[in-house]
Amino acid sequence: MFKILNKDGNAKRGEFHTVHGVIQTPVFMNVGTAAAIKGAVSSVDLKEIGCQVELSNTYHLHVRPGDDVVKELGGLHKFMNWDRPILTDSGGFQVFSLAELRKIKEEGVHFHSHVDGRKIFMGPEESMQIQSNLASTIAMAFDECPSSVAEKSYIRESVNRTTRWLERCKKEMARLNSLDDTINKEQLLFGINQGGVYDDIRIEHAKQIADLDLPGYAIGGLAVGETHEEMYRIIEAVEPHLPKDKPLYLMGVGTPANILEAVERGVDFFDCVYPSRNGRHGHVYTNNGKLNLMNEKFKLDDRPIEEGCQCPVCRDYSRAYIRHLLKAKEMLGMRLCVLHNLYFYNKMMEEIRDAIENNNFQEYKKNKLAGFEAGEE
Amino acid sequence: MFKILNKDGNAKRGEFHTVHGVIQTPVFMNVGTAAAIKGAVSSVDLKEIGCQVELSNTYHLHVRPGDDVVKELGGLHKFMNWDRPILTDSGGFQVFSLAELRKIKEEGVHFHSHVDGRKIFMGPEESMQIQSNLASTIAMAFDECPSSVAEKSYIRESVNRTTRWLERCKKEMARLNSLDDTINKEQLLFGINQGGVYDDIRIEHAKQIADLDLPGYAIGGLAVGETHEEMYRIIEAVEPHLPKDKPLYLMGVGTPANILEAVERGVDFFDCVYPSRNGRHGHVYTNNGKLNLMNEKFKLDDRPIEEGCQCPVCRDYSRAYIRHLLKAKEMLGMRLCVLHNLYFYNKMMEEIRDAIENNNFQEYKKNKLAGFEAGEE
Repeated sequence: MFKILNKDGNAKRGEFHTVHGVIQTPVFMNVGTAAAIKGAVSSVDLKEIGCQVELSNTYHLHVRPGDDVVKELGGLHKFMNWDRPILTDSGGFQVFSLAELRKIKEEGVHFHSHVDGRKIFMGPEESMQIQSNLASTIAMAFDECPSSVAEKSYIRESVNRTTRWLERCKKEMARLNSLDDTINKEQLLFGINQGGVYDDIRIEHAKQIADLDLPGYAIGGLAVGETHEEMYRIIEAVEPHLPKDKPLYLMGVGTPANILEAVERGVDFFDCVYPSRNGRHGHVYTNNGKLNLMNEKFKLDDRPIEEGCQCPVCRDYSRAYIRHLLKAKEMLGMRLCVLHNLYFYNKMMEEIRDAIENNNFQEYKKNKLAGFEAGEE
Repeated sequence: MFKILNKDGNAKRGEFHTVHGVIQTPVFMNVGTAAAIKGAVSSVDLKEIGCQVELSNTYHLHVRPGDDVVKELGGLHKFMNWDRPILTDSGGFQVFSLAELRKIKEEGVHFHSHVDGRKIFMGPEESMQIQSNLASTIAMAFDECPSSVAEKSYIRESVNRTTRWLERCKKEMARLNSLDDTINKEQLLFGINQGGVYDDIRIEHAKQIADLDLPGYAIGGLAVGETHEEMYRIIEAVEPHLPKDKPLYLMGVGTPANILEAVERGVDFFDCVYPSRNGRHGHVYTNNGKLNLMNEKFKLDDRPIEEGCQCPVCRDYSRAYIRHLLKAKEMLGMRLCVLHNLYFYNKMMEEIRDAIENNNFQEYKKNKLAGFEAGEE
C-alpha cells in the first residue's frame, strides 16, 4: 500500500495507494475545514493548484451540515465534487480546542457544540461512525490532545487511554467497512502518537500503537507551543519506533522550513492552516520569504507575487492590484492570496519529491532555507 | 460606431464598436465597483461566465487606490487584467448617495470621502480627468442625481445644470483624448438624461443632450423608488427624443423582468448590482424564479441550482452543498452564487439577442416572464 521509491538520508520518496488514487509523498494536504477551503477556494480550484489530498474536519462537519446529511448526499467526495483522496481528522483536536464544558471519560468525551451549544458525545466508535458516514479515504483515530502544560503523570494516563481508544477505533472501523450501506468500504485508519514533549512517553506510546499494524501513523499534539527544536527532537525520537513501511504524518505542521526539516527526519504527510490563514491576511509566500501585501511599498508594484511563479494568480495579477483588493476589503484579494499560497506549498512538495528522487535533498533544502532567510531584494 | 443588425418592434440587436472590441447588444454590464466583482470573482472568471463589459465606479477608484495609481499602473485594463470594454460611471451617483457633507455649486460638488473623510472636489472636468486616468472604454458624463422627492422646480434647475456640465464634459474629454500621455485616446463619452419622474423635464433634457451628438446616451436617476410602471413610462417618453443611431443605456436596472421590458422599449445597455448582491445573500436566479438557497428545503437537494445550466457552478455543485457553505459562512458559497447569477444574466442577454435576430422577441419575452412567475416545481 505504501511503496518507497527512493530514500535520501531519512527523507523518503513514496507512493501511497488508496481507493481514490495514488498519493505521491511527501505530500502537503490542503485544509478545507467545512468541506471548502477558506478564502472562496473550490475543489475545482484545488485541482488547478496541484492539490493531491483535501483534508476536512470531522467535528465541523458533524456539527454542520451533519455527517448524516453528507452520507445521504453520497459522501464527502460527491458532496464537494472532489474525486481524489480526502483525509478526515478524528474530531478529537477540535473537541479539545473548540468545544465547551467537556468531560473526558473512559468511554469518550461529553461536550457542548460551539455552534449551537447542544450536548454531544464522541468516543472512538462515534468518531469512526461519523468518518465512515463522511466516507473519507483516510480516517484518523480518536485521541486525546492533552494540554501542553499538563502534568507528566496526566499525560501518561492520557496516552494509555488513547491506546485503548485506538484499539476500539480499529475494531469499529473494521466493522463499519464490512457493512453493506457503507460508502467507502476501504476506508483506512491512521493511528496517532501522543505524549506531549516527553520523549519517553512518546516512545512508549509509539511502540504500543505500532503493534496494531495500521496503514499509517501520525505524530499529533505538536505545533501547540513547544519550540521548533523540541518538535524536531520529538520526531527524531519517535520515528524509529513506528513501522518503516508505513507513511508518517506530522499533524498541523507547519512553515515551509518546518516541512523541510520534518521531511529530512522521515515525515511523509503534512497539513497546516498557515497558507490559507496567512493568505486571508494578505501574507504571501515566496522563495525569498513571506511578503505582507498590505504594505505601502507594494502600492505601485506591478510585478506578480513571485516572478516566474506559474500559479493562476501570478500569471494574471500584480502585487499592486492584490494590495488594492485587500485594502478595499474585496473578497477577491483573499482568494488570490490563498490560491497562491496553496500553490506555493504544493509546488514545494513537488520540488521536495524531485530532490529526494535525485538524491540531492540536502542541497535543495539548504538552498531553499537560504532563500527564505535572505528575504526580498 | 453603433451598427443596428436587426429591429424587432422597438427592440434592437446591435453591435457597438470600441477600441477594446465589439459589444454585442443588448448587453448586461457586470458591476465590479472597486475593479473587482464583489464575491471573489476575478476578471478571468468574468470571461468564463460570458461577460462582455465590466463596469467600475469612478468615485470608489478615485478614493482608493486613487486614479493616479491606476494610471501609473497602465490603466484599469492592465490593473485588473481585463482586455474587453470597461465602462466607468462618472462618480456623480456615488457623490450624491455615499459622500458626506456635500455642497453643489455651478463649478461642481464639494464633499467628504466616505472612506477617510478628506475633502474632495469633483466637477465635470475632474470626473473626465479621473476617468481618463482610469482609461475606461466608455466614460459617463458627470451629472446630478437629484433626490426623487425633490421639488419639480429644483429638478428643472438641476437638469439645466447637468446640461451645462455635459457641455463641459464633452470639451474636457476632447482635450484629454488629444494629450500625449493619455492611455486611451479614443475614450468615449455617454451623456445622461435626468429629470426625475417628470416626462416634460425628461423630454426637454433629452432634446438638449441629443444636440451634443455623443456616441451614446443613458437614462439615469431611475430605479430609485419609482414604480416599475413609472420607469417604463419614462423610457417610452424619452427614447423617441434621443438619437436613433446611438445606443441607449438604462443605468442601474434591474430585475430580469425589468430588462425584458426595457429591451422591448429600445434599451441596449444595462447594469445592476442585483445578481452579485443577491448572490452574496444566497438568492439565485433560475428560469423558474429566484431561489433562496438558505431554505431548509435545499438541505438534501443534490440538484444543481438549475438543471441544464451550463455555468461553472451548476456543472459541479449541488444546491445542498452551496446551502451548507452559506450556512457555514464559507466565502465559497457567496462566490458560487454570484458566478451563477452573473452567468444567468449574461446568458439571458444572449438569448435576447438571438430572439431579436430571429424576430421572435415578443414570444421569447412572454415565455420567459411566465417561467419567472410560475416559480419552482
